[in-house]
Amino acid sequence: MRIIQSGFGAVGQSLAGLLESRDDIYTKYGIRTRFVAISDSSGTISDESGLDTVDVIQRKRQDGTVSESKKSIPSIIQSMDADVLIEATPSNYDDGEPGMTNITTALKKGMHVISVNKGPLALAQPSLVEMATYNGVYLRFSGTVGGGTPILNYAKNALRGERITSFRGILNGTTNYILTNMGNGLSFDQALNDARSRGYVEADESLDLDGWDVAAKLTILSNWVMEKNITIHQVERSGIRDVTQQDIQESVKDNCALKLVANCSDGISVGVEKVPINDPLCVYGTLNAASFTSEHSGTQTIIGRGAGGVETASSILRDLLDIRQAMSK
Amino acid sequence: MRIIQSGFGAVGQSLAGLLESRDDIYTKYGIRTRFVAISDSSGTISDESGLDTVDVIQRKRQDGTVSESKKSIPSIIQSMDADVLIEATPSNYDDGEPGMTNITTALKKGMHVISVNKGPLALAQPSLVEMATYNGVYLRFSGTVGGGTPILNYAKNALRGERITSFRGILNGTTNYILTNMGNGLSFDQALNDARSRGYVEADESLDLDGWDVAAKLTILSNWVMEKNITIHQVERSGIRDVTQQDIQESVKDNCALKLVANCSDGISVGVEKVPINDPLCVYGTLNAASFTSEHSGTQTIIGRGAGGVETASSILRDLLDIRQAMSK
Repeated sequence: MRIIQSGFGAVGQSLAGLLESRDDIYTKYGIRTRFVAISDSSGTISDESGLDTVDVIQRKRQDGTVSESKKSIPSIIQSMDADVLIEATPSNYDDGEPGMTNITTALKKGMHVISVNKGPLALAQPSLVEMATYNGVYLRFSGTVGGGTPILNYAKNALRGERITSFRGILNGTTNYILTNMGNGLSFDQALNDARSRGYVEADESLDLDGWDVAAKLTILSNWVMEKNITIHQVERSGIRDVTQQDIQESVKDNCALKLVANCSDGISVGVEKVPINDPLCVYGTLNAASFTSEHSGTQTIIGRGAGGVETASSILRDLLDIRQAMSK
Repeated sequence: MRIIQSGFGAVGQSLAGLLESRDDIYTKYGIRTRFVAISDSSGTISDESGLDTVDVIQRKRQDGTVSESKKSIPSIIQSMDADVLIEATPSNYDDGEPGMTNITTALKKGMHVISVNKGPLALAQPSLVEMATYNGVYLRFSGTVGGGTPILNYAKNALRGERITSFRGILNGTTNYILTNMGNGLSFDQALNDARSRGYVEADESLDLDGWDVAAKLTILSNWVMEKNITIHQVERSGIRDVTQQDIQESVKDNCALKLVANCSDGISVGVEKVPINDPLCVYGTLNAASFTSEHSGTQTIIGRGAGGVETASSILRDLLDIRQAMSK
């Protein structure tokens, strides 16, 4: 499969490294992958016969960019022969750009798309899915929710035959880390500074602290698993900025911990809630957790790291295998 | 799909009820199901044109049996036209009977098999899988591990493309319930009696208390997910009979809880271990939990009810959908 990679940060570099290191992907799944173009915010490098990814990664580390030309991803998509666009530019919840144009250009050209960029999906998932179907290609986005923890796949496939009636989740590791540390006695500002110093907080802090990141993931999950057909603006959303030590202490008295919880049942909302400490959903540190309640199988919870370059790259690999398998049917 | 159902306890009756109540299974997945024979320990009822399952369930409840004839399942398999055997007789770890003969007869006749009976798999999974492959049919057994919680499917499909390097699990709700209550101050005998009074303990108590049930599940999981090619006799196994209040108190001091843990990494074992209370694996009551550590995605845990008639029936439905999909390829 010939890949155009848009965005070459931690996830993109991890993916390139992972595909380079795993010869068993060909022997086990029959897939050979080749990057024909890779872009970052400064520009693009491309080669019809396939890039040497070891070389491109080294170049990125040395020079801070892969840029060899200023060609844009849409023009690359139009001019090069490739099977799949991997969209990994930063999430933007205003207009979804540049991811939105990258994705629509690829879909219209008949190219499969794997997006780990949440912006375009949070703003326009229903129409993007329709566009993919109309053009006879696959749009996959496993890495947008749960990073390497296959939350979407679990709900869609492992629970096949089930009717999922409600969902609750802790979908943002940064806010969970901050609330965990507040539970250990830190003030909000101390906990936030600690999270910043570890590089856990997005450049635009509002994405984490005001619940935008969680709302985007909840939108994608509600659409994909529970057929809600919504955009991020329909999610009732609040963040963690107002949580005080007093709130924390009160929750402890009730054998609970405060968590930023995403809910999808009658309403679709993101907000701080008390979660009983012996509820499987009550996870600590940067962990994510997702609880699905279904008609016959009761409530099931899946827990794992929700971010990380290698983890998210592993979800892209699963999407590639998925598309490959679907193509061969 | 024409079904022969062997064993008609809680799981079998729940399945019949579930398939009766879900008209969306046909509209959504294109499967029509029909039971052509149902047996319990007293005998069999059969009808080439399909049984009225509402009637059969009522008969079972009134008379305690479905029996209309003494025909055995193997003779039914030989004489009737059916697509799939659902094997749900009790697990037996001595010789796997009567399930073993039921399953091998069906596979040799070219019939798909769904087993929720752990005995035959714990004793002979590698050769049964080979027999299914040789005869060009599918052998599925999602309900043997985790009841309605799709632990096997999660590891095999949701983590596709990953190399799972180790597994830890709490796979028996009864022993977890007893240990949880001991954590609340009951003695082993008090906690056991409470579990008995709720109907949680198997008729043969050794299956729960001495770890046979967990060892069987671990065998199936190790073979299916980690290609270990073992039988239950290769699992190092101990149970919970020797756990004292003093052991419990000591684990509390270390911020841990005692759990009967199934392990598959270098060795394959079942035994009581201290689990830190903030480890996602540390679940209480009758819950089950399974933690998979994989090369790229870190450790992921899935938690849910591990037993129950309706829950396990929902896993059989998933296996039916799986076989139907595989057949149509």
